[in-house]
Amino acid sequence: MSLFVQKYGGTSVGTIERIEAVADKVASFREQGHDMVVAVSAMSGETNRLIGLAHEIQESPDPREMDVLVSTGEQVTIALLCMALKKRGWDARSYTGGQVRILTDNSHTKARIQSIDEQNIRTDLDAGRVVVVAGFQGVDENGNITTLGRGGSDTTGVALAAALKADECQIYTDVDGVYTTDPRVVDGAKRLEKITFEEMLEMASLGSKVLQIRAVEFAGKYNVPLRVLHSFKEGPGTLITLDEDYAEMEQPVVSGIAFNRDEAKLTILGVPDIPGVASRILAPIGAANIEVDVIVQNVAADNTTDLTFTVHRNDMAKAQGVLEKVCEEVGARGVTANDKICKVSIVGVGMRSHAGVASKMFDCLAADGINIQMITTSEIKISVIIDERYLELAVRGLHSAFGLDAEAQEEK
Amino acid sequence: MSLFVQKYGGTSVGTIERIEAVADKVASFREQGHDMVVAVSAMSGETNRLIGLAHEIQESPDPREMDVLVSTGEQVTIALLCMALKKRGWDARSYTGGQVRILTDNSHTKARIQSIDEQNIRTDLDAGRVVVVAGFQGVDENGNITTLGRGGSDTTGVALAAALKADECQIYTDVDGVYTTDPRVVDGAKRLEKITFEEMLEMASLGSKVLQIRAVEFAGKYNVPLRVLHSFKEGPGTLITLDEDYAEMEQPVVSGIAFNRDEAKLTILGVPDIPGVASRILAPIGAANIEVDVIVQNVAADNTTDLTFTVHRNDMAKAQGVLEKVCEEVGARGVTANDKICKVSIVGVGMRSHAGVASKMFDCLAADGINIQMITTSEIKISVIIDERYLELAVRGLHSAFGLDAEAQEEK
Repeated sequence: MSLFVQKYGGTSVGTIERIEAVADKVASFREQGHDMVVAVSAMSGETNRLIGLAHEIQESPDPREMDVLVSTGEQVTIALLCMALKKRGWDARSYTGGQVRILTDNSHTKARIQSIDEQNIRTDLDAGRVVVVAGFQGVDENGNITTLGRGGSDTTGVALAAALKADECQIYTDVDGVYTTDPRVVDGAKRLEKITFEEMLEMASLGSKVLQIRAVEFAGKYNVPLRVLHSFKEGPGTLITLDEDYAEMEQPVVSGIAFNRDEAKLTILGVPDIPGVASRILAPIGAANIEVDVIVQNVAADNTTDLTFTVHRNDMAKAQGVLEKVCEEVGARGVTANDKICKVSIVGVGMRSHAGVASKMFDCLAADGINIQMITTSEIKISVIIDERYLELAVRGLHSAFGLDAEAQEEK
Repeated sequence: MSLFVQKYGGTSVGTIERIEAVADKVASFREQGHDMVVAVSAMSGETNRLIGLAHEIQESPDPREMDVLVSTGEQVTIALLCMALKKRGWDARSYTGGQVRILTDNSHTKARIQSIDEQNIRTDLDAGRVVVVAGFQGVDENGNITTLGRGGSDTTGVALAAALKADECQIYTDVDGVYTTDPRVVDGAKRLEKITFEEMLEMASLGSKVLQIRAVEFAGKYNVPLRVLHSFKEGPGTLITLDEDYAEMEQPVVSGIAFNRDEAKLTILGVPDIPGVASRILAPIGAANIEVDVIVQNVAADNTTDLTFTVHRNDMAKAQGVLEKVCEEVGARGVTANDKICKVSIVGVGMRSHAGVASKMFDCLAADGINIQMITTSEIKISVIIDERYLELAVRGLHSAFGLDAEAQEEK
């Protein structure tokens, strides 16, 4: 008998029929004798409906009242799911974030969880009840309702699992696990049985939007075993776990190929190569609230340098405007911008201990005639910026070169 | 400068446009320097939508979870109204029932308010904020969300006004006040400037559904001046106040004519006239959860009695079934039932001190050839049961006979 925290997203509880299906699934676990805590999102569409109402009134709605408003979405779901469980003969009790007391800071619409009072939940579990908690929400120390921001229900699930020392936090989604890469790009992409928290973070931040990044960080920090599963299909999903556990297994050097089509590249040319110049260029970008991803700098022969970085495509025009001012101030030669690029990354804890992974990657791209515009690396990932036309070609080639294709694996 | 508690019902906040209109009204009071506390209902249709969702899952939804569900309706409204007030430059803060701490008993879906913590509200008022409170809801001492039952937002308004010792509790509705009778029946029906709590209770319970009965009782108990006004039309409405205040004025003997078309009459004939027989007849009716309104008993010459009472029309068939069993048990002669009846009542604190009010009423009905089937009286009301075909005739005749017609008044 285990304690499981399950989280169901908006699509999984989007209709009464689906809520009934979730109740069936939860009940089947409960029937096996497991203690069950369930965190749920608002029914799909509901949060957007509520935000729409707010925007009819205020262009930038008051954040405190926005949280009061949108937190009703999950409150509806917890009540309906409890009713569905009771109908099946299982005692169940719902909790809003405030009722659990999921204490957060007071950053409305993007609050962070500070602590969870697990007393009430524990009492209910001991009494045999299923506990259903509203995801995405909490209260600050003054009792104001807060929300964790979009996707925050994952974080609620993980935080509950951490506070209750659950055996596993199971995140039910509309995919049946984490894949070696996007199956829409590579036919042979296959589901991973296991992946480490670190790899998952790199995969998530690189565009495999299965789980909210904060939830993965949280799970890693408190060592909560996290499993991604499909809400309506049977299957073991993908277990996200600690590096140590993982290291015991026979593991591939590269676990997955991630990519991102949403970036644009900006270059400021012929910058005088003096200390502090990079900061003078990037500080105004940060001040304009533009997030920078990859940064590369190379020194040229004439004591000037070219500095290149990437931003979200939506921010390119704004960033270019900022850079053109900076260009004059620092006496640089000019600014170029290009949004016809993409980022392709190989991710794997295995590459730490394997030399030659990078050169294998570059060889593979060269063999397909793909020019690399930028390179960055971390301990467990190598990213390249290439022309966006080559994205599919690059991902398929790398997927195959690193032995990730379903057929290749089965042959092993 | 006064402290006003205003309550706006579901129709008054039924669309974003109407919420904006309510914000305009509240802002205009605030602008005059008044301290403002506003209690609101769910947007019209929302509560029914939520109840509909629950009924898709459970025929008799779990009461605790029902309260969690439907209480979201008002929570949406408080957030939107605060946004609309902020847009107008007025600081505002929303409170759910639990956040105020409107403490209730734990009778889910029909809870009663036990106390209100006015501390937070007072602090906000002192800081110049408009306070917007979710009507209809509270929490029990264990922090479970409760609701006060349909129409409970009126009670929330009155309870807040009592706790805060407000100068007036203003209930905004879709009528511009309390009328001498239903204007759809009598063209000359006119709005009352003032009415006592007692009269209002009799009028409300007799079918003039302007205010929730519990709210009027509550207001009377704590002597909260209560004003009924139209949400979207200007006008003084009707002030509901204490008898003492009212007695100072030149007042009519009869304040209004109420009526009810929803009753049915049952008679059990030839009951042996022995002690306790009335109870033996009515106890099974109560046990069947049927509410009895008027009861009349007369002794006949042969030591038997006929006992007649009225119930809601929807309960007539059920009541008849119960009575037929009782009839055999007590050895009565038979049971008759009739749903082609109505109840007409004259109401007024003035009749306490005026003899001849009853005979004037009966004369008036007789003059129109209307046969009286039953009569009951209280200190401030006289009700008769008559054939439903005569309802309009009776109401018009009495309205005129007691000098309530608009023209008649103006001539005085």
